[in-house]
Amino acid sequence: MTKLAEARVADARVADACVAIVGLGLMGGSLAGALRGRCRAVIGVARRVETIETALARGLINRGTTDLPSGVRDADVVILATPVLAILHLLDQIGPLLAADCLLMDMGSTKAQVVRRMAELPDHVQPLGGHPLCGREVSGIRAADPALYRGNTFVLTPLARTSEAALALGVALVEATGATALILDPERHDHLLATVSHLPYVVACALIGAGQAAASTDSAVWETVASGFRDTSRLASSDVTMMLDILLTNREAVLASIDAYQAQLRELAHLLRSADEKSLRSALASTRDQRNRVFGQRC
Amino acid sequence: MTKLAEARVADARVADACVAIVGLGLMGGSLAGALRGRCRAVIGVARRVETIETALARGLINRGTTDLPSGVRDADVVILATPVLAILHLLDQIGPLLAADCLLMDMGSTKAQVVRRMAELPDHVQPLGGHPLCGREVSGIRAADPALYRGNTFVLTPLARTSEAALALGVALVEATGATALILDPERHDHLLATVSHLPYVVACALIGAGQAAASTDSAVWETVASGFRDTSRLASSDVTMMLDILLTNREAVLASIDAYQAQLRELAHLLRSADEKSLRSALASTRDQRNRVFGQRC
Repeated sequence: MTKLAEARVADARVADACVAIVGLGLMGGSLAGALRGRCRAVIGVARRVETIETALARGLINRGTTDLPSGVRDADVVILATPVLAILHLLDQIGPLLAADCLLMDMGSTKAQVVRRMAELPDHVQPLGGHPLCGREVSGIRAADPALYRGNTFVLTPLARTSEAALALGVALVEATGATALILDPERHDHLLATVSHLPYVVACALIGAGQAAASTDSAVWETVASGFRDTSRLASSDVTMMLDILLTNREAVLASIDAYQAQLRELAHLLRSADEKSLRSALASTRDQRNRVFGQRC
Repeated sequence: MTKLAEARVADARVADACVAIVGLGLMGGSLAGALRGRCRAVIGVARRVETIETALARGLINRGTTDLPSGVRDADVVILATPVLAILHLLDQIGPLLAADCLLMDMGSTKAQVVRRMAELPDHVQPLGGHPLCGREVSGIRAADPALYRGNTFVLTPLARTSEAALALGVALVEATGATALILDPERHDHLLATVSHLPYVVACALIGAGQAAASTDSAVWETVASGFRDTSRLASSDVTMMLDILLTNREAVLASIDAYQAQLRELAHLLRSADEKSLRSALASTRDQRNRVFGQRC
């Protein structure tokens, strides 16, 4: 088949697919809402009955269950949308529960460990790692937004065993959410994300920590914070379990990114300490230009 | 006079005041727009004719001039709204140009050096340091927004020589912009702002630097950035001259805040390196709670 014919077949398979989403938090709930109406059925699997009820009431799923085996049994596609350590745990038990040729994707924020575990799945399953590059610092089904993925990048990390047809179906599902698929090797994904995602979280947490330390000697600290501190520290409000799983499953790369970051801080402090106005201005201007190239000035 | 009577007199003086604003960038232009219609007249003083023309066209000022002496000569209030080093330079020359009892305020982002220079002004001037705790990473008269100050804190740092009436007029002017006045000692202001404002800028710049360093070995870095990196690095797009003046006039406090910040980073890295899940979870949860207490979860 040509690539175009393959894509058309995959689109038809999306429309015909029964998709089970395991985990109905911000990411899973938003994905359910994005796919509902574009697939034959969206089934939600969650631990708590209240989560299912909220998802049903908000029209995010066609039906839901707290029972994993019955939720995934007839699904053509199963997407694991829990924090990473829970994904690893699910991968240990889910294989025998799945139908033949079932596409098993995940949305974990780190990929190397997940993909290594996926390689051990029974042969009748088609595994495909995934990670949407979007999110919010809020969590839970109540924060779910079917438009969350629109316009964002959604990384896919296929395994050697992933068939062309399974990958094409994964790409078509990603596109059905309004996102763009970016195919990456899982180790490369984790190294990149250590810098662009996990480091900013650590940076935000350390900023709150510095504020707390300063507040221990002058309680007016929190009266004088404004939008700059608020935005720079925003990620510190992220879901703790999600972030902890990320840090622990990408530990070496995150530690390396913190080291590289501290070198940048030391260099800026050195320029400031030596009051080298010309070099400092040039460093700050080049930094500003780099950011404006990536995000535009008003973002 | 009672405090209330004093405030009423000050409000009447605001309505009757001719206010000259020197510097029509984001901060000065926004202040002009906030005060126009609430004061007898708002005069803009800028270096470039085009800036005056834009401010007039946008209805931010009643009249404008590029000539400092004629712009401030008849003003009851003069507010310096340039970067800090330009404020220091203006303070060296502006005294003899001002009318008797003129209230001379500034909006510089650091206060100790400015207030020390204000102490040397001729006796006929009433000096008052000021710093609105708001801003944007965009600059220039085109970004000016009369609502910029609304709901924000505006620090005032009076001198020993500042009269009660001059301080009350300063407070009334601040309130006319929709902001709330917070009176602080200038050194205390600078120490607080090092942590809550200048440090976040340095933190954001170092994050862009870490991104650049990572991009030198994998060019996909900038393809994988998302909203987290964007927001955490937002301040790196700030006006370079403004930030350079801030860093250079608050050098010791900023260096101390960078040191304190690096200690926080080292502690987080230590917990991660030792894979101490329990302590790491507890640190991240306490950080999240602190941020949510200050800003609420959805900011």
